[in-house]
Amino acid sequence: MSFRQRHLLGIEPLSPQEIVTILDLADRYVDLNRRTVKQSDALAGLTQINMFFENSTRTQASFELAGKRLGADVMNMAVAQSSVKKGETLIDTALTLNAMHPDLLVVRHQNSGAVNLLASKVNCAVLNAGDGRHEHPTQALLDALTIRRAKGRIQRLTIAICGDVAHSRVARSNLILLGKMENRLRLVGPPTLMPAGFAELGAEVYDDMREGLEGADVVMMLRLQKERMDGGFIPSEREYYHRYGLDAEKLAVAKPDAIVMHPGPMNRGVEIDGEIADDINRSVIQEQVEMGVAVRMACMDLLARNLRAERGRAAVEGTYV
Amino acid sequence: MSFRQRHLLGIEPLSPQEIVTILDLADRYVDLNRRTVKQSDALAGLTQINMFFENSTRTQASFELAGKRLGADVMNMAVAQSSVKKGETLIDTALTLNAMHPDLLVVRHQNSGAVNLLASKVNCAVLNAGDGRHEHPTQALLDALTIRRAKGRIQRLTIAICGDVAHSRVARSNLILLGKMENRLRLVGPPTLMPAGFAELGAEVYDDMREGLEGADVVMMLRLQKERMDGGFIPSEREYYHRYGLDAEKLAVAKPDAIVMHPGPMNRGVEIDGEIADDINRSVIQEQVEMGVAVRMACMDLLARNLRAERGRAAVEGTYV
Amino acid sequence: MSFRQRHLLGIEPLSPQEIVTILDLADRYVDLNRRTVKQSDALAGLTQINMFFENSTRTQASFELAGKRLGADVMNMAVAQSSVKKGETLIDTALTLNAMHPDLLVVRHQNSGAVNLLASKVNCAVLNAGDGRHEHPTQALLDALTIRRAKGRIQRLTIAICGDVAHSRVARSNLILLGKMENRLRLVGPPTLMPAGFAELGAEVYDDMREGLEGADVVMMLRLQKERMDGGFIPSEREYYHRYGLDAEKLAVAKPDAIVMHPGPMNRGVEIDGEIADDINRSVIQEQVEMGVAVRMACMDLLARNLRAERGRAAVEGTYV
Repeated sequence: MSFRQRHLLGIEPLSPQEIVTILDLADRYVDLNRRTVKQSDALAGLTQINMFFENSTRTQASFELAGKRLGADVMNMAVAQSSVKKGETLIDTALTLNAMHPDLLVVRHQNSGAVNLLASKVNCAVLNAGDGRHEHPTQALLDALTIRRAKGRIQRLTIAICGDVAHSRVARSNLILLGKMENRLRLVGPPTLMPAGFAELGAEVYDDMREGLEGADVVMMLRLQKERMDGGFIPSEREYYHRYGLDAEKLAVAKPDAIVMHPGPMNRGVEIDGEIADDINRSVIQEQVEMGVAVRMACMDLLARNLRAERGRAAVEGTYV
Repeated sequence: MSFRQRHLLGIEPLSPQEIVTILDLADRYVDLNRRTVKQSDALAGLTQINMFFENSTRTQASFELAGKRLGADVMNMAVAQSSVKKGETLIDTALTLNAMHPDLLVVRHQNSGAVNLLASKVNCAVLNAGDGRHEHPTQALLDALTIRRAKGRIQRLTIAICGDVAHSRVARSNLILLGKMENRLRLVGPPTLMPAGFAELGAEVYDDMREGLEGADVVMMLRLQKERMDGGFIPSEREYYHRYGLDAEKLAVAKPDAIVMHPGPMNRGVEIDGEIADDINRSVIQEQVEMGVAVRMACMDLLARNLRAERGRAAVEGTYV
Repeated sequence: MSFRQRHLLGIEPLSPQEIVTILDLADRYVDLNRRTVKQSDALAGLTQINMFFENSTRTQASFELAGKRLGADVMNMAVAQSSVKKGETLIDTALTLNAMHPDLLVVRHQNSGAVNLLASKVNCAVLNAGDGRHEHPTQALLDALTIRRAKGRIQRLTIAICGDVAHSRVARSNLILLGKMENRLRLVGPPTLMPAGFAELGAEVYDDMREGLEGADVVMMLRLQKERMDGGFIPSEREYYHRYGLDAEKLAVAKPDAIVMHPGPMNRGVEIDGEIADDINRSVIQEQVEMGVAVRMACMDLLARNLRAERGRAAVEGTYV
């Protein structure tokens, strides 16, 4: 099993082989109905704590389900109403949690880098469930699994990531992952929502949807993150939809078998037309959610194996972790 | 086992025989202390999601306990703070949830009909935990079980439902259930809180408590739902208690062995006198809560059996559900 | 096994032998890594409800983990948003909960005495997780266990409790426990935060840190509870730190092997210097959190044994509890 990580903090530290290992294991958790199969032994006796400094019902639910389907004891900490409000620092919160000896810690935080900082202070496995504009690795992994199941491969595809790239850690983690796997990447959106640095990751940049979608295998729409726009240019929804919203006409220039993706929650009629979103011949949006549970199961399973191996070695050596 | 439903959306679709099936099974879950007996196998391996768009600590707790006592993995989604706030539609929320493949979905929603709509979009079993002014089927079933245990039957009884009938889905589900079982039904309350349509369900309407309670076997008080009264006539609590609050004097005209019920939470001194509520010879209010857990266990158990049977048939036929 | 309590409402009702019984059992739950060992049988089949009228993420998490590590079904009730808001009384909330037949009820409440009142109305075992300015027994027990592990004994020690004693149920429970075990107790803090009544518990009172810490074995700092100060004297943080904040200079007068404790969450730079808090040679603050889980496991285990024994006797006698 080629997976050597102690934490899952981002896609950046993963090798292509490690990514494939995660996808392969996730695939094995999915049955013919795309339902994830319960395997209570993998995390039996382990404690998973979900610590969401930023609310996200769907991501938290997906991690919670994944943990329970593998037999973990799962605890949700409502951090918004916690000691943080009483003036405690992030580090003290982390040290306190660490002293309760969880085995897996799933963290979402509004600040880029906060999850890495936290991971450096604890001795359990930390999974990044999204930090600021930095990374959201399980989203990129579930997107990769969805693409691989639809296209039969995760290499040599033309993939257009469209919309509000600037505010999107989803876009960032996807670019890194899909770049590692040697795909042709395009970023499509208004220049005001397109930071220069991203092009350095090897993507071509377009501000016209028809040019950007021409011949694409995968059209990945992003949510217009109005809640993250602080003082910058906010396009009107009507204008945005007209120029960048995915509708049948714009999709027509992509390959005939191109798939449509969206990380959710969707703004129907803003970044995507409702009919496209519901078209079971094009849209894989529901399957993305399904693969989300499977990918999170795989990540936690692999991290738990490494954690157990590390503890085993420590016990033999007479040290303790 | 005579229970053919795929969902429990209301009392309306249930046959009298199906109602009796639920009550019989619930009764078997109750021990001599009226404690519900843990039976971890019934829902083992199944996932129950509680999705309360409207807060209700007691109903949610009852469903959670019922699921855990049958061995389900139970997940509470705090929908009030969820993607719904980010502009996602109810249908998209439902589809996302559905893609996580829960087996049982317990839903409370402020809009009448929302739970039915949601059930039409998912392929798990949906239980209505209260929708607008429409139905609250498990409340009516727990009331029926409580009556049957106290009176030895759930037919040919004179039952007075008193108070704020207009705003009460509890009253509506009870009227339907008790009407199906051929009881004599009376609605008692101020005309402003008494919609005309309800009388068509076969109930006599009274605006005088002494007339309405005369000879009753069961006196079912309703909560004065101040939070649901939008702009209509709001009686003063003092005046309301004087005319419609249940006290010893008004109760004296009911049968000597009449039982007193209330779905909770109670406004003591508004719709019911505190001493009556606490009188263990008359009040079965605590037993209603106890039977609530048992009835919800029975409903989920029966729905899960149908779900498993359906999946078994689909697997044999090579289709998938 | 010398533990005869039905509830854990405070340290006051416990005998020294009962305290030692709890500490001994808790110690057995801790492995060489100070991790608590999962023992799913102790509370298997039992239901634990956490009912926090006052938010406390860390204490609730500790109780939840403790219950899950012993195999209980744990349910958190978000009481802040519950029926209490709809005008229900504390007693009615308690009776409703009781009718759902939990086995262990963990309660935190902002009013002194509320937990005792609640315990008198239910027939499950109640654990006080902090009530007003009254008691916080599991905190005192985890402090005692931490001290005993560091010092080898919990008798004949000089223990200085420092800071905002007036607002602290932690201080109160600690004073009672440490007094029962025959230690030399000192209270150190500004006279405005030092109620006269506490000295009657056998403690010497100091308003100068250097005098109060002279020769101490244990220095127990308290959180400056700004949120509890209603209209009284609020010192400036800078002035408070200067006079009462624990720093290296003040600590120098204590014994060379004195340990430093804090119940958390800490106000670094207010009641304690950050470097002292992080000094693994002096600070046992992380170990306090670790022992918290173990002590709560022990308390729930002991109460559950008594509950089961009581039920067994009742069944033999043909009565029911």
